[in-house]
Amino acid sequence: MAVTSVKRALSGAVAPGTEVTVRGWVRTRRDSKAGLSFVNVSDGSCFDPIQVVAPATLPNYAGEVQRLTSGCAVIATGTLAPSQGKGQAFEIQATRIEVAGFVDDPETYPIQPKAHSLEFLREVAHLRPRTNLFGAVARVRHTLAAAVHRFFHERGFLWINTPIITTSDAEGAGQMFRVSTLDLLNLPRDAKGGIDFGKDFFGKETFLTVSGQLNVEAYCLSLSNVYTFGPTFRAENSNTPRHLAEFWMIEPEIAFADLDADARLAEDFLKYLFRAALEERPDDMAFFAERVLPDAIERLEKFIASPFERIDYGDAVQILKKSGRKFEFPVEWGVDLQTEHERYLTEQHVGRPVVVMNYPERIKAFYMRLNDDGRTVAAMDVLAPGIGEIIGGSQREERLDMLDARMRQFGLDAAHYQWYRDLRRYGTVPHAGFGLGFERLVCYVCGLSNIRDAIPYPRAPGHAEF
Amino acid sequence: MAVTSVKRALSGAVAPGTEVTVRGWVRTRRDSKAGLSFVNVSDGSCFDPIQVVAPATLPNYAGEVQRLTSGCAVIATGTLAPSQGKGQAFEIQATRIEVAGFVDDPETYPIQPKAHSLEFLREVAHLRPRTNLFGAVARVRHTLAAAVHRFFHERGFLWINTPIITTSDAEGAGQMFRVSTLDLLNLPRDAKGGIDFGKDFFGKETFLTVSGQLNVEAYCLSLSNVYTFGPTFRAENSNTPRHLAEFWMIEPEIAFADLDADARLAEDFLKYLFRAALEERPDDMAFFAERVLPDAIERLEKFIASPFERIDYGDAVQILKKSGRKFEFPVEWGVDLQTEHERYLTEQHVGRPVVVMNYPERIKAFYMRLNDDGRTVAAMDVLAPGIGEIIGGSQREERLDMLDARMRQFGLDAAHYQWYRDLRRYGTVPHAGFGLGFERLVCYVCGLSNIRDAIPYPRAPGHAEF
Repeated sequence: MAVTSVKRALSGAVAPGTEVTVRGWVRTRRDSKAGLSFVNVSDGSCFDPIQVVAPATLPNYAGEVQRLTSGCAVIATGTLAPSQGKGQAFEIQATRIEVAGFVDDPETYPIQPKAHSLEFLREVAHLRPRTNLFGAVARVRHTLAAAVHRFFHERGFLWINTPIITTSDAEGAGQMFRVSTLDLLNLPRDAKGGIDFGKDFFGKETFLTVSGQLNVEAYCLSLSNVYTFGPTFRAENSNTPRHLAEFWMIEPEIAFADLDADARLAEDFLKYLFRAALEERPDDMAFFAERVLPDAIERLEKFIASPFERIDYGDAVQILKKSGRKFEFPVEWGVDLQTEHERYLTEQHVGRPVVVMNYPERIKAFYMRLNDDGRTVAAMDVLAPGIGEIIGGSQREERLDMLDARMRQFGLDAAHYQWYRDLRRYGTVPHAGFGLGFERLVCYVCGLSNIRDAIPYPRAPGHAEF
Repeated sequence: MAVTSVKRALSGAVAPGTEVTVRGWVRTRRDSKAGLSFVNVSDGSCFDPIQVVAPATLPNYAGEVQRLTSGCAVIATGTLAPSQGKGQAFEIQATRIEVAGFVDDPETYPIQPKAHSLEFLREVAHLRPRTNLFGAVARVRHTLAAAVHRFFHERGFLWINTPIITTSDAEGAGQMFRVSTLDLLNLPRDAKGGIDFGKDFFGKETFLTVSGQLNVEAYCLSLSNVYTFGPTFRAENSNTPRHLAEFWMIEPEIAFADLDADARLAEDFLKYLFRAALEERPDDMAFFAERVLPDAIERLEKFIASPFERIDYGDAVQILKKSGRKFEFPVEWGVDLQTEHERYLTEQHVGRPVVVMNYPERIKAFYMRLNDDGRTVAAMDVLAPGIGEIIGGSQREERLDMLDARMRQFGLDAAHYQWYRDLRRYGTVPHAGFGLGFERLVCYVCGLSNIRDAIPYPRAPGHAEF
């Protein structure tokens, strides 16, 4: 029994006439009047299922094959043959079909061979990878993740797994999840009536990380080129299709680098990832273009072909003010840009990806490097047509005196960041990095509009796992 | 200014006589009586630093070069030349050395060019990647992680990011960390006086995951071959050099597979990873063999060359009882094996890696498949010389009636696992998988005896981050 994946059987790599075995789940079964059944079997290795032609002469034809419904698991053996059917190059002329698992109560099986709403599928998240859409999303998500690692590996970056449970907040703000083993019905108190976190698991108050950046800077300032790729958490009750409480983030950090180098890295990186999706998953991308977003492929191709435009924040504000557009949020120098502004800049004004650089220092994090003008920092946002901000980054403040001033301004306790200050005392160098939310990237590539559809399980306020 | 990595400059890929620039951190500086200084510069790209020869004619020689100490950051430009010094093929004859960052107060800089104890370095975790040892560990850790992804990608597995915040416990046991945003000083109560988790962020009680396995099974039973590689958490106060509260775990899951296929996958996987470490990081491995564990390289080579032995648990118990060894924990059929037993089996009895299979059902998790004997389950542990258990895995119980019986036996609420039961109702198939603790793997490859030295930051009871 030479087991092959459906992908390989359909690829032409196996000579017609060869006996093959495929294993997977039934998508559809159609019985022909000629006394045959056509069973489409999918194993997740590629978008298309393979058609298994089951003759009535199979010993279990009436007893089992004709009872196959969507979702049943089968092991099908037969001869690989050029297919007469449209849309497929090969099929299997079965000599044996073993049913590994039937579907109990097929009438109520949630994944019927028909269109389902995304809302419905979020309620059956454990079964939705059996649909065309979520199988494709899983493959593209994997392809993008593999490309992330490959891109950095080829360039000599080291993957650093920064702590998930942490005592600090990278932004000096942002809602965090507490991590604790204290007995909530019997909380230890300190002398002042507060909670005595000295009795907690780590002997101090701990949270889930919002970013690995501060930690990975320590590796950057030892080993030059590093990145994180791991889960991060925001306990913000912003129940929108663009936000998750738990999401994976990619954060490269480069030494001896300024904001210009950072922007170049971001451009190379995004184009590399989009190229990987188009080249490695043409089948899934074609499906997204057909069923989800008509220009799903074209917009990635255009993105790859376009040099990024760079616009200073101050210029961006002028462009927006002169645009004649009526924005929901008015624009003035000093405000943060909203998605409507970002999309105007990248879609209407330039028509390709834009890097907005040098934001007002008051609206950006303490660790961003103050520019010589004293009122802006070396921060950037990469804006992409169809989505707005996709990457946020900055050159970091490597000068200890300036960092200390910024920390005072933000009301941060220098003692708590002593290790971070050390990095500025011992061989400091200019360095920069950015953050890319992985699920937002997956949404962009697949053309999904709700970020809950980019994760293996729905995760949102009111919805941990399922 | 043609910037090159130290790795490239030392590799022979750059023609002697070429002008190059390297950027990194000073390891040592030695002044010669001939009026030259030798500055060793490391950038993390490989184990060895490159020697930069600084002539006294440099304009900043007296003012800066002669003040360089360990940890200072420099940008050195000069001519690449064959080196007269021992142990290095090339050096840079500098025409310019720019100091990017000095070390404040060099006397107290923690990373002096001398041997430091591992205990001391755990206290300065943000600087320890600047040491030979932790630079090497970071590179090998990265190399292993990259090899993990490559191994699975080449075989058509999809990386699935299973939820970190979860409502369930994969083992039906094990201490978990609570994740919450409730105000501890003002906890909401329910009618019975308990905590009202309906008011918590997700509207229910949530924890950090101990394993992604149950979740990834849903993907396995849709897309065939999948794996997780992400952080997992155990709130166990086992303050030993072998345990962490937060660690990364790799969990492949394969469909249409039994325990035999699982053991073969584990064997191929470990050998692939060890080969990657030996082939891609010979410099770092040579250092581990020289300074950490003399047979660090030899034991990986032997591991790769040895077919795994397989021993039934029952036979293993007999072997241990007949060994004449006095174990701290006596062995009887029904007990779990301790490290002393595991190491006897793999080191003394067989002298190569061993897979112990078919453990008593009472000591194993509810999801493991009951064997026909009714008293063992299709579980395996892979034991490696020098460490004992390195992988634990099992075939999963795919039969709903058997699973339900096991869940009752473990006192688990079937309603809570309805989605997991669904996977057995809708096209169930035999499937199997295993778990590999990534930090334990790193320790094994690098020859480290304390798992705190395998992570980017020390993490242990009483020690979240630093």
